[in-house]
Amino acid sequence: MDPRSKKTALRMITHGLYLLTVKHKERLKASTVSWLSQASFRPPLVMVGVKADTLTHKMVEESGRFAINLLALDQTAMAQAFFKPVEQDGNQLSGYVFEPSPVSGAPIFVDAPAWFECQVLDIVKNGDHSVVVAEVVEAGVRQADAAPMALRDTVWHDGG
Amino acid sequence: MDPRSKKTALRMITHGLYLLTVKHKERLKASTVSWLSQASFRPPLVMVGVKADTLTHKMVEESGRFAINLLALDQTAMAQAFFKPVEQDGNQLSGYVFEPSPVSGAPIFVDAPAWFECQVLDIVKNGDHSVVVAEVVEAGVRQADAAPMALRDTVWHDGG
Repeated sequence: MDPRSKKTALRMITHGLYLLTVKHKERLKASTVSWLSQASFRPPLVMVGVKADTLTHKMVEESGRFAINLLALDQTAMAQAFFKPVEQDGNQLSGYVFEPSPVSGAPIFVDAPAWFECQVLDIVKNGDHSVVVAEVVEAGVRQADAAPMALRDTVWHDGG
Repeated sequence: MDPRSKKTALRMITHGLYLLTVKHKERLKASTVSWLSQASFRPPLVMVGVKADTLTHKMVEESGRFAINLLALDQTAMAQAFFKPVEQDGNQLSGYVFEPSPVSGAPIFVDAPAWFECQVLDIVKNGDHSVVVAEVVEAGVRQADAAPMALRDTVWHDGG
């Protein structure tokens, strides 16, 4: 396989940008992720790629729960903030105000236009990211008409 | 969970639109899919949602292989063609000329800007679509500067 062709073809996959959040043993975490897709209508499932050797992966695996904060097109600064280690200060993570999600207490950012909360069903480990298959068990919308962020609209479009 | 919130939040996930093709026992099939994401860099993995009760699912599961044809923004007619049953006529499927992929012989459409071919690693069955985790084993590019199609640019944006 030609590595350049592989890279170019995989870069044509349409990805978004999201904040994955998790609470485990009173610890909170938020990470920017891109590899997320719906995976079923009934029950409502999603699949998300989570980097294998990370605290986020460990917390998702051990707690069995996480939340996804959707991001709007103009929230690149928020996405950028959670590429880095998270600093908690009261009800803020890295400067962004959050509330606890209803089921697991994962951080829900008040600036995110929508969010949903997930229960992990399966974790498939074959590469540098795991495929986490999860059922959507709770959801909320703050701004229904937000234009969501696509990865290729940002400076981070480096897949493949 | 409020069904409207769930629907609105899941619709904010960024999805593309692709043609999944497969060859099994000399039979060829092409289907339009939307739930696809990269899932690892090393090895290069993807995850794709494939409707559970379909011929495509059966052929992917039994052959263990499939190809993904990327689509450009102006190829909605091509996406629409493969929502319907496929008609083969020589080297055409539903009017679109194809060549066999190098590894499995799955149809590669000559009009698709890029494609990649996959080896199935896992199939996770929890809902009306299965999560197919697969390794990218071959890839090709015909038009590297094509603007890829996002689901929300089309009339079919009805997820959730």
